[in-house]
Amino acid sequence: MTPNVLAAKEALAHLDLDEKPASVKAKSRDFFWYSPILKSRLDHLVGDFVVAPKSEAEVIEVLKTCYEHDVPVTTRGAGTGNYGQAIPLSGGCVLHMRHMNKVVDIQPGRVIVQPGAILREMDQEIIEKSGQEIRMFSSTYATATVGGFIAGGSGGVGSVRWGQLRDLGNIIRLRVVTMEAEPRVLEFTGEELHRVSHAYGTNGIITEIELPLAPAYDWVDVLVGFDDFMEGAAWAEDLGNQDGILTKLITPIDAPLPHDYFLRIKNRIRREQSVVIVMVAPHAMDAFMTFTARTKSAEIIYRSDKVTPEEKKAFGVAYEYAWNHTTLRGLRVDPSITYLQARYTQPGALEQVKLLRETFGDEVVQHLEGIRMNGKLSFAGLPVVRYTTDERLEEIVKIHEDLGIWIFNPHRYTLEEGGRQAADDRQLQFKREADPKGLLNPGKMITWDRPDFDYRTVYDYAGMRKPG
Amino acid sequence: MTPNVLAAKEALAHLDLDEKPASVKAKSRDFFWYSPILKSRLDHLVGDFVVAPKSEAEVIEVLKTCYEHDVPVTTRGAGTGNYGQAIPLSGGCVLHMRHMNKVVDIQPGRVIVQPGAILREMDQEIIEKSGQEIRMFSSTYATATVGGFIAGGSGGVGSVRWGQLRDLGNIIRLRVVTMEAEPRVLEFTGEELHRVSHAYGTNGIITEIELPLAPAYDWVDVLVGFDDFMEGAAWAEDLGNQDGILTKLITPIDAPLPHDYFLRIKNRIRREQSVVIVMVAPHAMDAFMTFTARTKSAEIIYRSDKVTPEEKKAFGVAYEYAWNHTTLRGLRVDPSITYLQARYTQPGALEQVKLLRETFGDEVVQHLEGIRMNGKLSFAGLPVVRYTTDERLEEIVKIHEDLGIWIFNPHRYTLEEGGRQAADDRQLQFKREADPKGLLNPGKMITWDRPDFDYRTVYDYAGMRKPG
Ligand SMILES: Cc1cc2nc3c(=O)[nH]c(=O)nc-3n(C[C@H](O)[C@H](O)[C@H](O)COP(=O)(O)OP(=O)(O)OC[C@H]3O[C@@H](n4cnc5c(N)ncnc54)[C@H](O)[C@@H]3O)c2cc1C
Ligand SMILES: Cc1cc2nc3c(=O)[nH]c(=O)nc-3n(C[C@H](O)[C@H](O)[C@H](O)COP(=O)(O)OP(=O)(O)OC[C@H]3O[C@@H](n4cnc5c(N)ncnc54)[C@H](O)[C@@H]3O)c2cc1C
Repeated sequence: MTPNVLAAKEALAHLDLDEKPASVKAKSRDFFWYSPILKSRLDHLVGDFVVAPKSEAEVIEVLKTCYEHDVPVTTRGAGTGNYGQAIPLSGGCVLHMRHMNKVVDIQPGRVIVQPGAILREMDQEIIEKSGQEIRMFSSTYATATVGGFIAGGSGGVGSVRWGQLRDLGNIIRLRVVTMEAEPRVLEFTGEELHRVSHAYGTNGIITEIELPLAPAYDWVDVLVGFDDFMEGAAWAEDLGNQDGILTKLITPIDAPLPHDYFLRIKNRIRREQSVVIVMVAPHAMDAFMTFTARTKSAEIIYRSDKVTPEEKKAFGVAYEYAWNHTTLRGLRVDPSITYLQARYTQPGALEQVKLLRETFGDEVVQHLEGIRMNGKLSFAGLPVVRYTTDERLEEIVKIHEDLGIWIFNPHRYTLEEGGRQAADDRQLQFKREADPKGLLNPGKMITWDRPDFDYRTVYDYAGMRKPG
Repeated sequence: MTPNVLAAKEALAHLDLDEKPASVKAKSRDFFWYSPILKSRLDHLVGDFVVAPKSEAEVIEVLKTCYEHDVPVTTRGAGTGNYGQAIPLSGGCVLHMRHMNKVVDIQPGRVIVQPGAILREMDQEIIEKSGQEIRMFSSTYATATVGGFIAGGSGGVGSVRWGQLRDLGNIIRLRVVTMEAEPRVLEFTGEELHRVSHAYGTNGIITEIELPLAPAYDWVDVLVGFDDFMEGAAWAEDLGNQDGILTKLITPIDAPLPHDYFLRIKNRIRREQSVVIVMVAPHAMDAFMTFTARTKSAEIIYRSDKVTPEEKKAFGVAYEYAWNHTTLRGLRVDPSITYLQARYTQPGALEQVKLLRETFGDEVVQHLEGIRMNGKLSFAGLPVVRYTTDERLEEIVKIHEDLGIWIFNPHRYTLEEGGRQAADDRQLQFKREADPKGLLNPGKMITWDRPDFDYRTVYDYAGMRKPG
């Protein structure tokens, strides 16, 4: 099966098609370079052309044409993924969703949007029109698309309240186009949502999304300092389990990361001080302050409702210090670091964290993210790792896994290795139906190519384009 | 200290004052008669006159006057309490709040109201004006006042999400008038709220209330049937811990109560069928149905979004089958029953329930209410008790307590015995400051009159008026 890229390009020439090498290269990359391992493996990869459809009909046309000519299609939102999700491993067409960015309909409790909408732009429109907002967003709110978030993200700001995207109720409906001789348009709800959500666009292109909404508030950003990180983390856990105190973000970060990486507020944080970043509903601030006053060692370093507009501007927004923005700020100060994505077990998350701190000392510094799991507050982790060698990084992952901690390994480009290290049958089944030629984002679903793969080894996609 | 009722009445004659025996008697009673024990002790009690202030200034005038003449003052909202909270044990003035019923101000996330507002009336005004609603209400929504709910209630519909009134954040501010020669007006927030919330009006009169709001939805009422009660209860617990599925009420009720007591829907429930009553946000119905389909034995008996207007009207509203409305419907069918108020421990609530069912068989039939406790779904219980004698009722209470279950004994009229069976120092301290003569709702706070009281015995207020 040899792709006929030329024929596909000719057939699609009447669409918004881009083949300028510089921009095709730019549109073939994402934030995979957070990982030194992915950086060394994926840095040379580039698609053959970019096409940006303006409607579902154009999506269908692109898929039909590429199917006919055996051309791989890798969908692109904004390319902010960290797992190389949006990188075309075998070249071909980059399907750029940016024109499909409309808010289609807003109702009480729900919204229908197109996948290429930037999270913050669409949310602002929803807030203005209805006083509601989306339940959760990745910290790349300002740049990422909602389609990329659904297909390549997991959760983020808001997960402290609502859990993650995968939890029932956090996505209402997805509309999907298949990659066949005659592409079909399917609507998924309920159990079927999981077929294509977080599937990296390997088995269908999402063309419409229905999401639940929550009430919009003018969230107050707060930074709380602790001399003892574990004390701060315990406080954070308690806070997240306060049923009457509405919060949207709870992020404990160990010293010296806040002082060293948060340049905009560095002078207000002592180097040995850990912080918890919080977003609190304005009408919960009284209760929040009452709760906080009960912990003598908690120091309010910053609260956005009590500063001058200049101070607020200098600080920015709390969520851009959290999730993978913590890592981003770190990388700017020290490009040699990298990170992990962990999920601690519940109950017992903080015991695991304590043990990890003792085990690794400065080599792995804790950055936790409160997420709701089966009712209770639990923690994900995006610890900062002082990278030395690939071998040591793998060893660090192994030590975590041996403690029973899930690692969603951000140094792998496949769904399975970045996920639960097992085949997802629903996604695989649907790929059989929807992408019989295996042209959608090839190489990202191991079980499609190598059902017998042994997860103790590292996957190496045979179809990947060679450098040079 | 002999009250001079006559002098007080004369001084207050220019206010809305009522001394017609029939209406004074009606305004001196509440729903204490749910308890055969309270019924036999409190049935004869009646105040001397009723005064209904139109403003805070009039409240101050009443309190100042009654203070001067040593006349007890018992505040009344709508008199729907079940603990005899609103019954004047030593006669005197019944302070009826019904005129002070305005919604003062609505903001995003918060509302300011007067205490005499009926919960449903004020909520409808808030919904219409802002698309928001109060977080929680007692199932007496249609009749009870917000002041009575704060001063005499605990939680209810909405507690499955927000916990109970006592949890930080569920009350923002209370404005309170003291009972002194010169009554003071105080504003309480934070830790101080607890001084007067759930204090039965024993240490101050609430004249203004600020509460948090949640988004208003057109909640869908659902009845789910189970052949096995414990299976239904486990399903209910799981449902309440689904982070992405927004619910407002989760009420498991054991057979045969639903069939026997829910006359409006009796013909759709088999006698051996248990039910779980649920209120679900409309935009969560898809996820709810997906979740429910995973439990083969769950049968959807009723859902308000799929019936005719006539069927909906016949059914009424879900919350009027829950909380103490379950008991009310039972009492209408079988006036010999009574009930308890229990709080099971978490984790382990359902094991306790299982044990209770085995221990008591038909004598104590389970009615659970999902409430959020420290993040997780937990259960309160309002089991229906087939009453035989006072002694057996006390024994049943004792068996619960021996299992480590909290009983908020609804067969007692004091704060302590209906609560945690211990002095509440913050309430007592504040009574010392705010009601030095002990004239507010006398006899309801044991520690005021008898600091040395032994909670293994039953309290008998020495100042209670004798029958006849
Ligand atoms: C600084 C930083 C912070 C981050 N914080 C978070 C966070 O808090 N939470 C989180 O979950 N992630 C986070 N991420 C990862 C990433 O930002 C999110 O996953 C983001 O939502 C991806 O959106 P995107 O538009 O950039 O998607 P892309 O990177 O363009 O695409 C992601 C994946 O989705 C596929 N895809 C895109 N659109 C479609 C479509 N319409 N149909 C089918 N498949 C499609 C792509 O093929 C790709 O596999 C962060 C990344 C960075 C760099
Ligand atoms: C069928 C039924 C169902 C019920 N369901 C629930 C439920 O779901 N949840 C729940 O918590 N309770 C429930 N209850 C109990 C009761 O309805 C609630 O406590 C209710 O909110 C009380 O409101 P009220 O206006 O009737 O108060 P009242 O009974 O009039 O007063 C309650 C107490 O508050 C005091 N008080 C009233 N107003 C003030 C004020 N302004 N300042 C100071 N003190 C004041 C009174 O003195 C009294 O001690 C139920 C009762 C019944 C009969």
